[in-house]
Amino acid sequence: MTQRVRVQSFGVSRDGIGAGQEQTRQRPFGHVDPGELMAWAFETAHFPGRTAPGGSRGVEDRLTRDFAQGIGAEIMGRHKFGPQRGPWPDDGWTGWWGEEPPFHTPVFVLTHHPRPPLTVGETTFHFVDAALAEALALAKAAADGKDVRIGGGVTTLREFLEADLIDEMHVAIAPLEYGTGLRLWERPEELEDRFHLERITAPSGVEHCFFWRR
Amino acid sequence: MTQRVRVQSFGVSRDGIGAGQEQTRQRPFGHVDPGELMAWAFETAHFPGRTAPGGSRGVEDRLTRDFAQGIGAEIMGRHKFGPQRGPWPDDGWTGWWGEEPPFHTPVFVLTHHPRPPLTVGETTFHFVDAALAEALALAKAAADGKDVRIGGGVTTLREFLEADLIDEMHVAIAPLEYGTGLRLWERPEELEDRFHLERITAPSGVEHCFFWRR
Repeated sequence: MTQRVRVQSFGVSRDGIGAGQEQTRQRPFGHVDPGELMAWAFETAHFPGRTAPGGSRGVEDRLTRDFAQGIGAEIMGRHKFGPQRGPWPDDGWTGWWGEEPPFHTPVFVLTHHPRPPLTVGETTFHFVDAALAEALALAKAAADGKDVRIGGGVTTLREFLEADLIDEMHVAIAPLEYGTGLRLWERPEELEDRFHLERITAPSGVEHCFFWRR
Repeated sequence: MTQRVRVQSFGVSRDGIGAGQEQTRQRPFGHVDPGELMAWAFETAHFPGRTAPGGSRGVEDRLTRDFAQGIGAEIMGRHKFGPQRGPWPDDGWTGWWGEEPPFHTPVFVLTHHPRPPLTVGETTFHFVDAALAEALALAKAAADGKDVRIGGGVTTLREFLEADLIDEMHVAIAPLEYGTGLRLWERPEELEDRFHLERITAPSGVEHCFFWRR
């Protein structure tokens, strides 16, 4: 099986916004409330961060269930890992996810400021100052034959799309508008020249867009 | 994690028919054409029997992708395994699936005529004359902590539903009517007293029904 490069359950608003610019330790998505933008995922039984019992087991659960399936590594932008800018301060930051991040694979964090790898629970973060294709080669080698997830944020995902390095992508459009923030696209149809696009609206009101290479 | 009892991608027509009664070696579903009833699944990239390259990677592919995930054993009725009735003839029959059946786990075949286990490729079929709960206990023990799939056919699935042994179920309703045959239900709403029911229609025209215990 060929290794594929996948985007899973990436959330944006109707106006294409996936996060605010004014990120802080308290607000990883700035003025965007991830509990609102990703409400559909939090409700499902298989949401990776879920600790409460119960949860829905409908179509959206099939999407969260798929998060780790066949994935051997993730690539993320530096701002998905933390709010710091410039050289890494000695602040003991280990990511937003507590003692057991939901990745359980090698994660490659794109940064202009390399630092030694950091292991948190079952996840090891590697900090690489590398071009996208180079980082992808590292991630594929680390993925042990499995697929690579591009985890975001918005800027990183845009860069991978512009470099045409994505094979398939699931984006969840929440029935919200933010007006300002980091924008993935004007409209999903922009990508139809390169991707098949299938759209389906769940009972939650969220429109799920599936893209795969033509 | 609790072991769950799951039904995956079970196909019926709008009038609830999953197979015809007049099964033969050539027609495992009798007058029902599985290539028509399950066309949506055959088109997806992850359909277990798929050999052609390509295939769709939209919402229905997420459903076929899920077929083996977390499953450690299957239970099927005798007629899903083969067209024979009564004592097993010495006819060399090894199932409908050729040299590599798509299960890759222990499979428990319910029959009043036990026989020694049969290994085909990575799948071992165990032939058990047992009550449903007893067969389920065997399958759970063999599943190594994973879930158990109830694979059908219609009669077996109805029996498991009547015994209230199913935890979650995905049934795909194809836009077809057969009039006669083995009927799963009159209407999916019949099960709403015991199950949450979520319904979503894919661009293929197939309505996917997801059930999970209340």
